Amino acid sequence: MAQVEDSVVRFGILGCASIARKVSRAILLTQGACLYALGSRSLAKAKEFAAANNFPPEAKIYGSYEEVLADKAVDAVYIPLPTSLHLEWVLKAIERKKHILLEKPPALNVEELDKMLKGCEKNGLQLMDATMWMHHPRAAKVKDILHDKEAFGDLKEVHVLFSFRAPDEFLKNNIRVKPDLDSLGALGDLGWYCARAALWAFDFELPQSVTALPGVCFNEAGVIMDCAATFTWNNGQAASFRCSFQSCMTMKVIMQGTNGAIELDDFVIPYTEDIATFKFHCDASFVDKSLGWICKHQEHEVKTSTPQEALMVGNFTKLVRGIRDGSTTADHKWPDMTRKTQQLLDAVKLSIEKHFCTIYL
Amino acid sequence: MAQVEDSVVRFGILGCASIARKVSRAILLTQGACLYALGSRSLAKAKEFAAANNFPPEAKIYGSYEEVLADKAVDAVYIPLPTSLHLEWVLKAIERKKHILLEKPPALNVEELDKMLKGCEKNGLQLMDATMWMHHPRAAKVKDILHDKEAFGDLKEVHVLFSFRAPDEFLKNNIRVKPDLDSLGALGDLGWYCARAALWAFDFELPQSVTALPGVCFNEAGVIMDCAATFTWNNGQAASFRCSFQSCMTMKVIMQGTNGAIELDDFVIPYTEDIATFKFHCDASFVDKSLGWICKHQEHEVKTSTPQEALMVGNFTKLVRGIRDGSTTADHKWPDMTRKTQQLLDAVKLSIEKHFCTIYL
Repeated sequence: MAQVEDSVVRFGILGCASIARKVSRAILLTQGACLYALGSRSLAKAKEFAAANNFPPEAKIYGSYEEVLADKAVDAVYIPLPTSLHLEWVLKAIERKKHILLEKPPALNVEELDKMLKGCEKNGLQLMDATMWMHHPRAAKVKDILHDKEAFGDLKEVHVLFSFRAPDEFLKNNIRVKPDLDSLGALGDLGWYCARAALWAFDFELPQSVTALPGVCFNEAGVIMDCAATFTWNNGQAASFRCSFQSCMTMKVIMQGTNGAIELDDFVIPYTEDIATFKFHCDASFVDKSLGWICKHQEHEVKTSTPQEALMVGNFTKLVRGIRDGSTTADHKWPDMTRKTQQLLDAVKLSIEKHFCTIYL
Repeated sequence: MAQVEDSVVRFGILGCASIARKVSRAILLTQGACLYALGSRSLAKAKEFAAANNFPPEAKIYGSYEEVLADKAVDAVYIPLPTSLHLEWVLKAIERKKHILLEKPPALNVEELDKMLKGCEKNGLQLMDATMWMHHPRAAKVKDILHDKEAFGDLKEVHVLFSFRAPDEFLKNNIRVKPDLDSLGALGDLGWYCARAALWAFDFELPQSVTALPGVCFNEAGVIMDCAATFTWNNGQAASFRCSFQSCMTMKVIMQGTNGAIELDDFVIPYTEDIATFKFHCDASFVDKSLGWICKHQEHEVKTSTPQEALMVGNFTKLVRGIRDGSTTADHKWPDMTRKTQQLLDAVKLSIEKHFCTIYL
């Protein structure tokens, strides 16, 4: 066993996914966390990945995922495997009593997810999905304004766009276009963030209805490349989103209140690590004869010395440490958010399958 | 008959609607046009309006709409009456051989509109709806970029938001909340601009399908206060919009191409008369490990010494003069746009009535 302080949370990573490079770095940046183990089906690939990503020399590099889970020193695993493998490896991780930081989408559907959540619940394990933006202090600052009844008023609508134009190589070979790997395609990859943003804005109250919009694009294998959906709440609130592998990179969320509106142009990944911005406008009125209009525009800057993914790892690490030392139990807040987001994706998918009929939750 | 140059196009205005203040000023600003007559059911109100809006002293002020139409010197009428009165007064204007600048929405439905268009066609009269923003040079500049296959790529999606928070007085008394006046409510008033923007972006190709989104809000009289819809084209292109009297003022259009995106924050009425802006971003890419992303942001400024409503009056005036002097005939381009936009509103309304089912055009 590598020598690490007892208070440190030891992470094992399953697989060498591209996103694991970012999260490895985040673990390295997190006080009280250490990059303890990495497993890949190819030991050579794991060694190469570890070397390229500044794993400490004492890190355990394994030629299988099983060995990471079998390592008793591992407290928590980060699982960036294709979604179709999540259920298997999350359940195996639970058997080995590992806390789980899980790449999104966490599951192919809520039935799968519930098996994972039940296992975590039974074993007192923390599960958190790797939706990084929620951990950025910008999210908290935006929330303050969303709850400001005077400046913002009541939230009426949320619009979310997350797209990027996938290059030919991606459209041919990426796991997110393969029905046996990430069969939710753009919905699972990008729509996850959109659904989460809508839920988050509405304080995680589930909408009453979910309706996919006509005009879905599939690839030849039947995987969603572009789709859109709308959510409604009983009190006249609504959200809609579009996610696409087919149009230029856009990560926009617009939140419309009765008095003001908030807009983020880079909500998933801030343009830069240290400063994230958002726009707020309010108090609009027409000038005489409606020849023009004025409103108060504010651009807010939120600085952070720690990137959002390291803040996420930090929050997860604190929870794991608390559970390990017996001072707390697993925080339901995180799996609850995960489950609600998965419910929305399931409903969008079902609505698409049912020719865009409205699904009532 | 007031003395005006023979080459000048003489406008008569039916009614003293608030928007007529803006258009009266636009007529005054237009070379070759003159504010020749005004009619209201109340002569006193007409006189007051004329005095407050710089009508020339020789302008004819009538105590009825009929008298404006009966005045043979009037070349063209501007009709800002409630929509439910359009059919009657447009047909009467056609009888009197007046060209027609018509406030939007032009009609309660396309059947009504077709009666108007047929009358204009038969009599060689020009009809133009008063959608002002299309005449701003910003629109042409945006169109140049939309057609730039390298910078913008192919247009994939359009998102339009037009809302304002109507004060209580508006929600009680405005014609746009009355089922017997402007029964299309927010859809006719705001949705008109949204549907037009989507059509305009897609070069007026009608979509294949129109679907209203669940979550429509009606007032007690059954008039739409808030609604949303989506349009799809067969080649995977889509547009969606939301229009609302219930959330803060927003006039946003986002056009997403494969390579770039264009965004206007004030597409209906520019913040200021002399400069309108729009944003363009393209060439987005992630930095290493997706720790951030970069793209080229441009803010374009388009200046105009003539406000968009005066440019509209100018374009209409030129057409009328050309028809009057026999050098041209009525330009079908404008009523064609009007009809397609009305078709979309009709389809949205029908989709709402049919519980949000998809309407195929």
